[in-house]
Amino acid sequence: MAALQRLQPVRRVAVSGGTHGNEMSGIYLVKHWLREPSALQRDSFSATPFLTNPLAIERCVRYVGRDLNRTFTKQFLNSKAARDEPYEVQRAREINHLYGPKGSAEAFDFLFELHNTTANVGACLIASAQDNLLPMHMCHFIQTHCTPGYYPILLYNLPDQETYSISSVAKHGLAFELGPQPQGVLRADLFTQMGALMACALDFIDLFNKGTTFPAFEMEAYRFIGSVDYPRHPDGELCAAVHSKLQDKDFLPLRPGDPIFQTFSGEEILYQGHTTIYPVFINEAAYYEKKIAFNKTEKCSLSIPALQRE
Amino acid sequence: MAALQRLQPVRRVAVSGGTHGNEMSGIYLVKHWLREPSALQRDSFSATPFLTNPLAIERCVRYVGRDLNRTFTKQFLNSKAARDEPYEVQRAREINHLYGPKGSAEAFDFLFELHNTTANVGACLIASAQDNLLPMHMCHFIQTHCTPGYYPILLYNLPDQETYSISSVAKHGLAFELGPQPQGVLRADLFTQMGALMACALDFIDLFNKGTTFPAFEMEAYRFIGSVDYPRHPDGELCAAVHSKLQDKDFLPLRPGDPIFQTFSGEEILYQGHTTIYPVFINEAAYYEKKIAFNKTEKCSLSIPALQRE
Repeated sequence: MAALQRLQPVRRVAVSGGTHGNEMSGIYLVKHWLREPSALQRDSFSATPFLTNPLAIERCVRYVGRDLNRTFTKQFLNSKAARDEPYEVQRAREINHLYGPKGSAEAFDFLFELHNTTANVGACLIASAQDNLLPMHMCHFIQTHCTPGYYPILLYNLPDQETYSISSVAKHGLAFELGPQPQGVLRADLFTQMGALMACALDFIDLFNKGTTFPAFEMEAYRFIGSVDYPRHPDGELCAAVHSKLQDKDFLPLRPGDPIFQTFSGEEILYQGHTTIYPVFINEAAYYEKKIAFNKTEKCSLSIPALQRE
Repeated sequence: MAALQRLQPVRRVAVSGGTHGNEMSGIYLVKHWLREPSALQRDSFSATPFLTNPLAIERCVRYVGRDLNRTFTKQFLNSKAARDEPYEVQRAREINHLYGPKGSAEAFDFLFELHNTTANVGACLIASAQDNLLPMHMCHFIQTHCTPGYYPILLYNLPDQETYSISSVAKHGLAFELGPQPQGVLRADLFTQMGALMACALDFIDLFNKGTTFPAFEMEAYRFIGSVDYPRHPDGELCAAVHSKLQDKDFLPLRPGDPIFQTFSGEEILYQGHTTIYPVFINEAAYYEKKIAFNKTEKCSLSIPALQRE
């Protein structure tokens, strides 16, 4: 068993909504908290809510020039302002200035990202990798303390890949990804659930700050390993849809030979892989342009050491 | 009992997909039929598929300049081309030229519109009004001959209101509105269902053309009577979401005193009307900008006389 790990207390916390301007739960939660900030206050800190991509939110689109949540990399954050650059590059630098700089001692301690997907992922908790202990303990706390439910954990970073999402600007971060919810729609049930997740996460930080010892534990997670594109005609047009038997089956096992697509002419296309995988973000609206019909993950078991503040 | 009505045979039929460029079932069905037209052929006629708003489809947005499906009115169809007019005004005139002109003897006999909504309307059949017998018989034929299911009929036109949708360009028309489906997402189940509806409707036209007598019948329909906006802060921002108890309850009775909204602070807002209504298009993504949280309908019984071709 690994020894107890110690981390500095968490004082500066930010909550970002509307990194994608048509994901409504986070947008309306942040707008609500900006009017009534008390929900984000705890004894040991207060979280700062902010709207991430105001121009995209105003137009109710995912982004204006490029996907903001793929723009928090060195390439963009260290670039010089240019007249013809996408709006999101400028906004990423601003956010990095306000809540980072990424990788520095001055960066915020924790940054939450609030997202929605059209896929049936339920209430999914997304961390970049397992080596950042604070988010992993937060996930475990949510799984054991939040309203009974299924809170799958997704690890999105490939080995040696640079982190690119907004939460990577702070020292620690976590994304809440709730679905299914259509783009541009606010569902009361997901709004309430996202608010409850946020409250539970802030309670965890408060307990951590107050010196609570969080014991070691084992947990299950889903690790991103790649993606699968839609079948296409030679001219690039789709020739099939996600199969009805795969639709809405996020985080469930997909075995070699299982159907994954049905062509518009009615034929089935089967999964040709050699191992069981766990698809996520199945038929996500925003991923058509990224040529992703679903992401592939593998299930893994993690051993997380005990944690306490310094 | 009203006497048997006679109408001319239906020879020129068009099927429009992508009047709204992010409603994917119709878009991909039309793209499929353009490659493989046999599904639209019957003994007595062949239907012509076409993509209604190519620019919006390319960008995967509802429209580029203005809602095309509110643009088939005299005001727009008779307007002169202007340099700064919305793209959809020009496109409406083109479509009117190809499949109309609206109200003329040269117009196509029948025009189908294929739509999706984020609301839980199921497979809804939308006609402008009950006085156009051919679509009403077609609806009845679908209800009695298509795969067992619920096919509610919505009459969208207010008395004395000018028709404004694309199908009004032809002599007769009907819209298939399938939901829930997020904008920009193609679900295999709805794709298949919309294809089956289309096949059933074309079978009906073929039988009609061949001289089948369709007896008189009684039917139930939902008549549009108005709409309800979201509650808002004084600055116009939403302060509430559709109540969880109303969400997804399209075509079900809403009684005075039933909850319709929940504010972001957690209070319930109740329906203040004096009669039972039947909400439809509850929480439709595209209606936020139209200030419509849901449409109100009243249930009505219709007596439809028997029909045969001339």
